[in-house]
Amino acid sequence: MAGIPIRFGIIGCAEIARKVSRAIQLAPNATVSAVASRSFDKAANFAKANGFPPDTKIYGSYESLLDDPDIDAVYLPLPTSLHLKWAVLTAQKKKHLLTEKPVALSVAEFDQILKACEENGVQIMDGTMWVHNPRTHKMKQFLNDKEQFGQLRTVNSCFTFLADPDFLKNDIRVKPDLDALGALGDAGWYGIRSILWAADYELPKTVTAFRNPVLNEAGVLLECGASLLWADGKIATFHCSFLSNLTMNLTAIGTLGTLHLTDFIIPYQEHQASYTTSAKPGFNELVTGWVQLPSEHTVTVDLPQEVCMVREFASLVANIKKNGAQPDKKWPTISWKTQLVLDAVKASMEKGFQPVEIVG
Amino acid sequence: MAGIPIRFGIIGCAEIARKVSRAIQLAPNATVSAVASRSFDKAANFAKANGFPPDTKIYGSYESLLDDPDIDAVYLPLPTSLHLKWAVLTAQKKKHLLTEKPVALSVAEFDQILKACEENGVQIMDGTMWVHNPRTHKMKQFLNDKEQFGQLRTVNSCFTFLADPDFLKNDIRVKPDLDALGALGDAGWYGIRSILWAADYELPKTVTAFRNPVLNEAGVLLECGASLLWADGKIATFHCSFLSNLTMNLTAIGTLGTLHLTDFIIPYQEHQASYTTSAKPGFNELVTGWVQLPSEHTVTVDLPQEVCMVREFASLVANIKKNGAQPDKKWPTISWKTQLVLDAVKASMEKGFQPVEIVG
Repeated sequence: MAGIPIRFGIIGCAEIARKVSRAIQLAPNATVSAVASRSFDKAANFAKANGFPPDTKIYGSYESLLDDPDIDAVYLPLPTSLHLKWAVLTAQKKKHLLTEKPVALSVAEFDQILKACEENGVQIMDGTMWVHNPRTHKMKQFLNDKEQFGQLRTVNSCFTFLADPDFLKNDIRVKPDLDALGALGDAGWYGIRSILWAADYELPKTVTAFRNPVLNEAGVLLECGASLLWADGKIATFHCSFLSNLTMNLTAIGTLGTLHLTDFIIPYQEHQASYTTSAKPGFNELVTGWVQLPSEHTVTVDLPQEVCMVREFASLVANIKKNGAQPDKKWPTISWKTQLVLDAVKASMEKGFQPVEIVG
Repeated sequence: MAGIPIRFGIIGCAEIARKVSRAIQLAPNATVSAVASRSFDKAANFAKANGFPPDTKIYGSYESLLDDPDIDAVYLPLPTSLHLKWAVLTAQKKKHLLTEKPVALSVAEFDQILKACEENGVQIMDGTMWVHNPRTHKMKQFLNDKEQFGQLRTVNSCFTFLADPDFLKNDIRVKPDLDALGALGDAGWYGIRSILWAADYELPKTVTAFRNPVLNEAGVLLECGASLLWADGKIATFHCSFLSNLTMNLTAIGTLGTLHLTDFIIPYQEHQASYTTSAKPGFNELVTGWVQLPSEHTVTVDLPQEVCMVREFASLVANIKKNGAQPDKKWPTISWKTQLVLDAVKASMEKGFQPVEIVG
């Protein structure tokens, strides 16, 4: 990890870029080198407001940032509809790519992005932060423990938040020409990812959307959900919404154990994160109480999860840049599977909520 | 409540009758007067093993207990397939009825039971205990708080437990001639009830069973689930299983608040019970943590929930017996709605997992 940090260029000054640019600055192996907006002033103000180093280069166009030979990697927080164009261009300019989620409007689009990355030997990773939290690794150890957790049987994942009237009118996530996948692409991405994560990224056999999703007047999803089925009988459900109180519950139930947490995407606190496990609990003799209560586990988070994400990405980039390694396949494969299931949810809606087969 | 306690006769010596007969003994307005089994010895042993009063009458047949004029009410823990016959007979013998759940194999059967109860002026209530826990009333206050909870949008309910091989081979709940509704009638009953409870017992418009439920060789459900939709856009899901680790999660999400607990059916401890509420939480400025954490509330439970249930039932019976009141309609209506939705889940499965309209 030692050595010269990976130099990031940020394309677009979205709200989320404030958090991720801070993470780039905090990561031990990364640095913010440039920021671009379609407006030079906007980029300059963004750099200033977010405390970028004084020598950060400011660009008034995305193209000029991509032409800068002193940028190793691009962080792309643009609206989803712009991912295809700018992700492909980024790859063609031989720059590694940390892209916001959803990675594209469809798997077909993402395949084009992946092709460009492969052809140009660049790393791609999506901006899903929680999977990089040390808590997530600890939780996975529990799910992998055959003695304590057994075989995974069921996952339920829920991410909702109450968007305010301004969001519901103006946010890019409710605009068909910007983030056309709406709540499914934004909140649902996390639900799908958490389910795949719990299932060791084994794809489900079928996906069936819940009936009566809520759409806005422009046809963008504001609330929806789906059930996912595997050949071995596992079943998972997720629900996502812009119309309900902030809730982030994840429950994974195995034959022998249960994992549960209520802040899986953004932990309540930045520097520690908790989860609950229960393994082979039972009832007392008259079934009036439990004989073994769930255990709460708290993990110290030295580096915030988004910093862990940037560190992981920069480490992969450094390995390519300094050691001539091949780009890692794990993270793009996970992105691809998430998008594939997301597409299937949409397809199920379009097929009248019938099950859609997943062909991985 | 003062005065002579309501005299219970227990018909059948099921495992659950141990817990409920203790509750009858602990309730301030009830007493165990008689127990019947098809075998006199079994009834006598049950009375002894469960510390019944020495003057408890022992009957070697259900009929003889029903003919006893000194019994006010019957507790019926028989397998579901026997409910119709014995519930109707109980009513015809002018005895009030506390019956185990599911109340019948179908709403059509339950309608016959209700008719018999009405014609004979007797009270009927089902044995769902958790709704009588003082915690449940406190939680309902939160759900009713328009400032803190807003409008209900989503409910997710999950009740699973890992049945052992003996259960899966021999328990009445896996036998098509006894509890033919299997996991749906046993565990799913609670999921459906909890959803209806959260929705103020407003019936959903449609019910759609999840695909690929698990059945045993005899065709009895071991695992299943469903989604419920209301006309106003509310959606609820439940999952029930005999094949996964003991888990009892209930989450109700409103526009402004979230209610959550992980032991909703049987609280971890008998004399206190907790739940979590969250009202209008948000994120800190960089969205790296929450600004308001969920609050945990603990309720002291002076009388165990099953004792509260018996006390409530006995109080209704006493009001009829001593004051000439009419039988209460609230509890049988709730039982009926639960069974109606349960029937719809079955019907959806039979219709190839298509939505079934609820006509209440």
